[in-house]
Amino acid sequence: MNRKELIDLIHKKKSFLCVGLDSDITKLPKCVMESEDPVFEFNKRIIDATLPYTVAYKPNLAFYESHGISGLVSLKKTMDYLHTKENECFVIADAKRGDIGNTSKQYAKAFFTKEGDFDFDALTVAPYMGEDSVKPFLEYENKWVILLALTSNKGSDDFQMFENAEGVKLYERVLRKAQDWGNEDNLMFVVGATKAEKFTEIRKIVPNYFLLVPGVGAQGGSLAEVCKYGLNKDCGLLVNSSRGIIFADNTEQFDIVAGEKAQEMQQEMAMYL
Amino acid sequence: MNRKELIDLIHKKKSFLCVGLDSDITKLPKCVMESEDPVFEFNKRIIDATLPYTVAYKPNLAFYESHGISGLVSLKKTMDYLHTKENECFVIADAKRGDIGNTSKQYAKAFFTKEGDFDFDALTVAPYMGEDSVKPFLEYENKWVILLALTSNKGSDDFQMFENAEGVKLYERVLRKAQDWGNEDNLMFVVGATKAEKFTEIRKIVPNYFLLVPGVGAQGGSLAEVCKYGLNKDCGLLVNSSRGIIFADNTEQFDIVAGEKAQEMQQEMAMYL
Repeated sequence: MNRKELIDLIHKKKSFLCVGLDSDITKLPKCVMESEDPVFEFNKRIIDATLPYTVAYKPNLAFYESHGISGLVSLKKTMDYLHTKENECFVIADAKRGDIGNTSKQYAKAFFTKEGDFDFDALTVAPYMGEDSVKPFLEYENKWVILLALTSNKGSDDFQMFENAEGVKLYERVLRKAQDWGNEDNLMFVVGATKAEKFTEIRKIVPNYFLLVPGVGAQGGSLAEVCKYGLNKDCGLLVNSSRGIIFADNTEQFDIVAGEKAQEMQQEMAMYL
Repeated sequence: MNRKELIDLIHKKKSFLCVGLDSDITKLPKCVMESEDPVFEFNKRIIDATLPYTVAYKPNLAFYESHGISGLVSLKKTMDYLHTKENECFVIADAKRGDIGNTSKQYAKAFFTKEGDFDFDALTVAPYMGEDSVKPFLEYENKWVILLALTSNKGSDDFQMFENAEGVKLYERVLRKAQDWGNEDNLMFVVGATKAEKFTEIRKIVPNYFLLVPGVGAQGGSLAEVCKYGLNKDCGLLVNSSRGIIFADNTEQFDIVAGEKAQEMQQEMAMYL
């Protein structure tokens, strides 16, 4: 999906909600546990219920890899199902990959092609290894790198806030440097909702880029704050909620409740747009 | 495998060689392409030929993930085979993972348990997200985090050399900070062989830690230089070679040639030990 299509989708649905499919099998409602593939059954019902209010889905690879190959089979079924909704959502692999050039090239194949089984629209990438670890992902048309800049967790202070003699922090360096490699059509950045006070400064460095914003909900970030300082003329935000939507209820009605939670967020988002 | 067992293995084999199983299917010799699972057949023959000279194997996840689920089935078979050699080698997942705490916890399960299908001894981890992204991996007994510090690629200059007002570089900050989280029994660092001039400084910060050293061979690093500045009283090095061993030959004799290349490196290593 290209930038224009993504923006059109946001305006059509009046939403910039991303639903994180962190589908931890130990938290799934009992009613799906009897089906042949509980994780896929859960994801499918969550997708069906939330799709009207959602522009993006973000499976978190860790929750599938932790069950080995059977977990990845559940992910593939989920992706096959999402591909039947191709023009209705953008799909992000939250996998935080990144390695030397010849290896990132293989990861790009893994996430952006049918040969890799998943064929995502976008992949989260960790910047630590620099240019040649990021560029191979930028060579695919209509595919996106979402580069970690300032993450939502406590540990983000340890290195991302590391500062040079001119007062430039590492995450600011990442935001600036990455613009030499990619552009607004193939690159986004991760900025945590728990850092809302930083959005004004960040928007000075990347005024037109899309930001993927985790940390609203269970992690404590505020949607109103993020929007106040983070929205740009093209929206420029994808705000993720995982646990706050998908595990809002664990009865047989879990999907209906997830849909309601997504709708609540979509209605708040429509106001800000 | 714990630290003592690893050191004993190094002394028994007079080797600190790690063979990188970057088993790119497009580079495999024709003779394995007719078998049911060419990647597994290739890996098995490489392992059989190199095991006497090798203390560690390091499958690079990207080369398996790029073939989707079937690639991961080849990796699982390779790991099952390596588990039959359990006391003869240390096995590293080169996967550069790292995410917020609850997600790293899932990645730890993916790589360090049978439930995740692979049960590796060690995992390479990217430090960008800080403490809570690393700690969950350190909670497993006899399992190891190998944290990226100074990598072998050109892009390592972009962020790893970023320097604060006191002249401390980011990779030095990583080396220092991570010692608050782990210790010599569960933590190693990645330092590229292409940065041999940096080993003296690095050994001042982490005198007793093991270092995993990629970049000898195809990437241009020198084994002699790495050993001169990097060896410590317990050896303290695992030096990786991937392409220089596994793709040294592409005839039916590929495994014999790989064994010879591994033996050459082992003999040079025995001299330095």
